[in-house]
Amino acid sequence: MPNIGDVDQDYKLWVLLGQASDMIFEARENELREYGITAMQAEVLFAVQAIGDKTTPAQISRWTLRRPHSISGILDRMEKVGLIRKTKDLARKNQVRVSMTDKGRQAYNKSLKRKSIHRIMSALAEEERQQLWSRLETARNKALKEVGKDPKKVPFPKSL
Amino acid sequence: MPNIGDVDQDYKLWVLLGQASDMIFEARENELREYGITAMQAEVLFAVQAIGDKTTPAQISRWTLRRPHSISGILDRMEKVGLIRKTKDLARKNQVRVSMTDKGRQAYNKSLKRKSIHRIMSALAEEERQQLWSRLETARNKALKEVGKDPKKVPFPKSL
Repeated sequence: MPNIGDVDQDYKLWVLLGQASDMIFEARENELREYGITAMQAEVLFAVQAIGDKTTPAQISRWTLRRPHSISGILDRMEKVGLIRKTKDLARKNQVRVSMTDKGRQAYNKSLKRKSIHRIMSALAEEERQQLWSRLETARNKALKEVGKDPKKVPFPKSL
Repeated sequence: MPNIGDVDQDYKLWVLLGQASDMIFEARENELREYGITAMQAEVLFAVQAIGDKTTPAQISRWTLRRPHSISGILDRMEKVGLIRKTKDLARKNQVRVSMTDKGRQAYNKSLKRKSIHRIMSALAEEERQQLWSRLETARNKALKEVGKDPKKVPFPKSL
């Protein structure tokens, strides 16, 4: 029988938070699989669309809060499967710019449906979603400070 | 300038949830680094402690909601660095049992401090933590159903 002993409430809350995040991610992966992309690739396409055609890998990293190294690997893979194009900036030769291919744009458009996420969030009433937003924002901002990042410099998501 | 167009609120809420989860995870990683273990390894040690000395990899997988394949890789790594021991069950030869080594137990004991998590959660008042718990539980359970898992069979965490 599980013996969780002196497990504290903060830890349990964090575990629950991780489970909620992971399970919605998994549902999203299942949904996106039929469009041939992963949830992470959809996230990057979303960032490229939002930032615009002169997107740099560093901007994607800031937008998604993923480490530059992770983003670099994801972009390599996405270029290989034809979702994005990497070009050298004409003015700054050592600067890479990322743009969507036609295939990437098609995948992006399909990814906007987000049926899985809507189904899951529909379990919460509007007021409950607002509450969840507010509590999560507090926790996220505190955690960002804890790891030495400035919450004000995180571009997305802005308030509900 | 970012152009997020028709981004819907459910999606933004999910992104915020992911950011909160990831940033607390990163803070936890930073904290655990001085004890020489990762947050994922601490999670597995916690599960082994909770389930007991006849722990199987499948139980760890159910406990942590991580895929059997991921757990298998994590356990291999943990055995290599001396945190756990894998032994064959005497009665069922094809069944592996996982137990902590002395080194694993020392790391487990240190990991219980969870200073980073306490500091982050302290940004929320007790009532706000309860609210967050309740909303997250609703979303997690709905997401579990969405991916075909039974929320009642997820052993941890039990209510706050």
